[in-house]
Amino acid sequence: MNAIEQLREALGDIVDTDPAALQVARGDRSGHTASGTPLAIVHALTVEHVQQVCRIATETRTPIVVRGAGTGLAGGANAGTGEIVLSTARMTAVHEIRPDDLLAVVEPGILNADLNDMLAPHGLWWAPDPASRSISTVGGNIATGAGGLLCAKYGVVRDAVLGVDLVLADGRLLHLGHRSVKGVTGLDLTSLVIGSEGVLGVIVGATLKLRRLVEGTTCTIAATFPGVRTAAAASAAVTAAGIQPAIMELMDAASLAAVASLLGLPSPSAGTAQLTIQTDGPAAAAEADAVVAVLAAHDGVVQVSHDREEGERLLAIRRSMHPAMAALGTTLIEDVSVPRSAMPAMFDEIARIEREYALTIPTVAHAGDGNLHPNFIFEGPETPPHVWAAADALFRAAIALGGTLTGEHGIGTLKSRWLAEELGADQWEIQRQVARVFDPLGILNPGKVFAAHA
Amino acid sequence: MNAIEQLREALGDIVDTDPAALQVARGDRSGHTASGTPLAIVHALTVEHVQQVCRIATETRTPIVVRGAGTGLAGGANAGTGEIVLSTARMTAVHEIRPDDLLAVVEPGILNADLNDMLAPHGLWWAPDPASRSISTVGGNIATGAGGLLCAKYGVVRDAVLGVDLVLADGRLLHLGHRSVKGVTGLDLTSLVIGSEGVLGVIVGATLKLRRLVEGTTCTIAATFPGVRTAAAASAAVTAAGIQPAIMELMDAASLAAVASLLGLPSPSAGTAQLTIQTDGPAAAAEADAVVAVLAAHDGVVQVSHDREEGERLLAIRRSMHPAMAALGTTLIEDVSVPRSAMPAMFDEIARIEREYALTIPTVAHAGDGNLHPNFIFEGPETPPHVWAAADALFRAAIALGGTLTGEHGIGTLKSRWLAEELGADQWEIQRQVARVFDPLGILNPGKVFAAHA
Repeated sequence: MNAIEQLREALGDIVDTDPAALQVARGDRSGHTASGTPLAIVHALTVEHVQQVCRIATETRTPIVVRGAGTGLAGGANAGTGEIVLSTARMTAVHEIRPDDLLAVVEPGILNADLNDMLAPHGLWWAPDPASRSISTVGGNIATGAGGLLCAKYGVVRDAVLGVDLVLADGRLLHLGHRSVKGVTGLDLTSLVIGSEGVLGVIVGATLKLRRLVEGTTCTIAATFPGVRTAAAASAAVTAAGIQPAIMELMDAASLAAVASLLGLPSPSAGTAQLTIQTDGPAAAAEADAVVAVLAAHDGVVQVSHDREEGERLLAIRRSMHPAMAALGTTLIEDVSVPRSAMPAMFDEIARIEREYALTIPTVAHAGDGNLHPNFIFEGPETPPHVWAAADALFRAAIALGGTLTGEHGIGTLKSRWLAEELGADQWEIQRQVARVFDPLGILNPGKVFAAHA
Repeated sequence: MNAIEQLREALGDIVDTDPAALQVARGDRSGHTASGTPLAIVHALTVEHVQQVCRIATETRTPIVVRGAGTGLAGGANAGTGEIVLSTARMTAVHEIRPDDLLAVVEPGILNADLNDMLAPHGLWWAPDPASRSISTVGGNIATGAGGLLCAKYGVVRDAVLGVDLVLADGRLLHLGHRSVKGVTGLDLTSLVIGSEGVLGVIVGATLKLRRLVEGTTCTIAATFPGVRTAAAASAAVTAAGIQPAIMELMDAASLAAVASLLGLPSPSAGTAQLTIQTDGPAAAAEADAVVAVLAAHDGVVQVSHDREEGERLLAIRRSMHPAMAALGTTLIEDVSVPRSAMPAMFDEIARIEREYALTIPTVAHAGDGNLHPNFIFEGPETPPHVWAAADALFRAAIALGGTLTGEHGIGTLKSRWLAEELGADQWEIQRQVARVFDPLGILNPGKVFAAHA
């Protein structure tokens, strides 16, 4: 029997070969599509289903692409010719919520926002907040090390996971990590799995570290600046002044203009950039006052709201960035990250690349943590060569400033050709060998992350 | 030429074979001593020195034991027959302190307290605070994943390191991690190195994630309880009430009596246990009030201080635990960690083990995070078999309660025989293979961590 026949015999009607579903599994939110069409999608409902798929895949040497909600931005869960899509999207159970131990034990398919809706009545939340949180799964957030708006104050995914249950390529189940706050028993394989993008194993469960909901008011500050460099310098000055906002989002002029056009708002003056800052917790109001003083000293025109709903309206401009870009054409959303102090220099580099490649690169940034999303816009489905050339220049500039290729989206398909450049050949090789310890046959997400070593 | 001759030729007088120094390198603060005497200690001053030692060790197949200040509690840096001690204690430079990027770049040998003294004038600190902080190195803190009193509120070492420079067994230098808040480029080898106890490579540099110094008053609460179980339940109730103290330390009756005897204080009534709790930050006073209410409702006799110095006097009782134990005999300090809610049950298990093995096991706990330090006291240098049998029962009890063998001290020599039991045979083997990717010849800290697989 071939792999599909074995899967059907073992798993019955959770093996899906509907052409429309297979078509969807070729892509994600990056716009990139895999070559060819996968063999089948298995909609796993249990850990045992996942183990059976892995055993059959190992026996038949069939590649597996693990997939959650398909909201990735690096092509990491895109499946093509000859591959089995192993979906954990239907494994949505929440097994435990423990306010006393500040942890939850969940299956990977639950959506981030759905989990937080279940935690809120207990006065709890799980801090990772990718912009996709209403449509992305917790398992996908862990597999990609997804970031978001709140990371400078509330940490990254690595800070919010205590343990992971992982099915290996051969079907064995490992329980990694622990339920206690502290634990240094052996190597930290839990952290190794976070951000591993499906090349080490299948995440079938997670023990999440929770926080208590933040009490007190939320203050929102929106400020416009005569240029993006001024806005970047103002945001760096906020951090340098010792203030830690919950959210600090920067939009350059092209981004702001595109959103104004989408929402039918008055056009901002040419060159106008914007910072949107939110403070929370018991000191929110005092911190907001301090933020306002810093921004005003940096030529900001400042507007403050102490009302949560009005604050959400101010943030709505930032949250409309993705649809505004989509309205302009096909978008390649980049994701470089630099030390906070290098933000103004990184904007200088983006301006240089715009000139050199005759492009407009609308850019938003999580300015509190130095994570920039430059957007390349083009016609048609394929990223044109000159856009890749500009992206290449962008990556080199970020690395030269002490930064990294990807702050929160991952390597996936789209950035694997730059991975060795950042890691160095020795580290690249060590990482690949570590992955092979988990997956000796190389059947998990082949062609991703470590694929394109120069 | 043998290894020592090659080291002398390459490195001159930083190669130390003074018998007294070699004797010191056989032990650490665990009381355990390695068999035999190491060949030499190399006092590396530069990364290049470390690389040369590794190249010579690889060429001559000589084992290396990396060592900082020798303050470990698991025998992980103890060196014996035929081994080279590679000390990074003299690599103490602080290359950068960046208040704007909230990071510091340091060499591994700087003492934790010395680093924090240098950070304080910038309004910054590095949060990991093992009890050994005045005598332990930052490199050692990273290599062991050292914990401390503040972890529940301010995180563990894994949350406070952005990058590590690592020399492999063959002398190659890897730059792991990044300088930015976010970064998901490839596998997270930085986290893998944290707590790896010298089996993956030699830490020769680190990029540390800093915090701003906490402003506001510090409130200290000391409360006595009629028994340890009541005290443990009271501490769990503090967390369950949604309060996050900076410090929450528990001492059982035997600990309290031993410290009272050492310090010449009046003896507490039989069975009396104590909680010492510290709140900090802008809400310190309000949190202290809430803590007092919870403790009083749990039969606590409560004393509060809003003065930092008086608070330190209250904490001095807890800080005198180690000398108080040393005054009683040779001490094996254990280090199990359980979910916070399991603390009362864990104290029941300790009471059961005391009865079954006819031992008194004075126990202190970082009650805020569920990390207990039961102390076994005995005569003479060697841990007697019945103490190991009781420790074995202790580990099994902690694991059965959802806990772990070691919260912050590590596996080293002393716990390697229990490692596979907690990890499971499959995970143990995967971890060992991962270590072999970094060190294919097995010359880094052989006999530690993965040594004693049953």
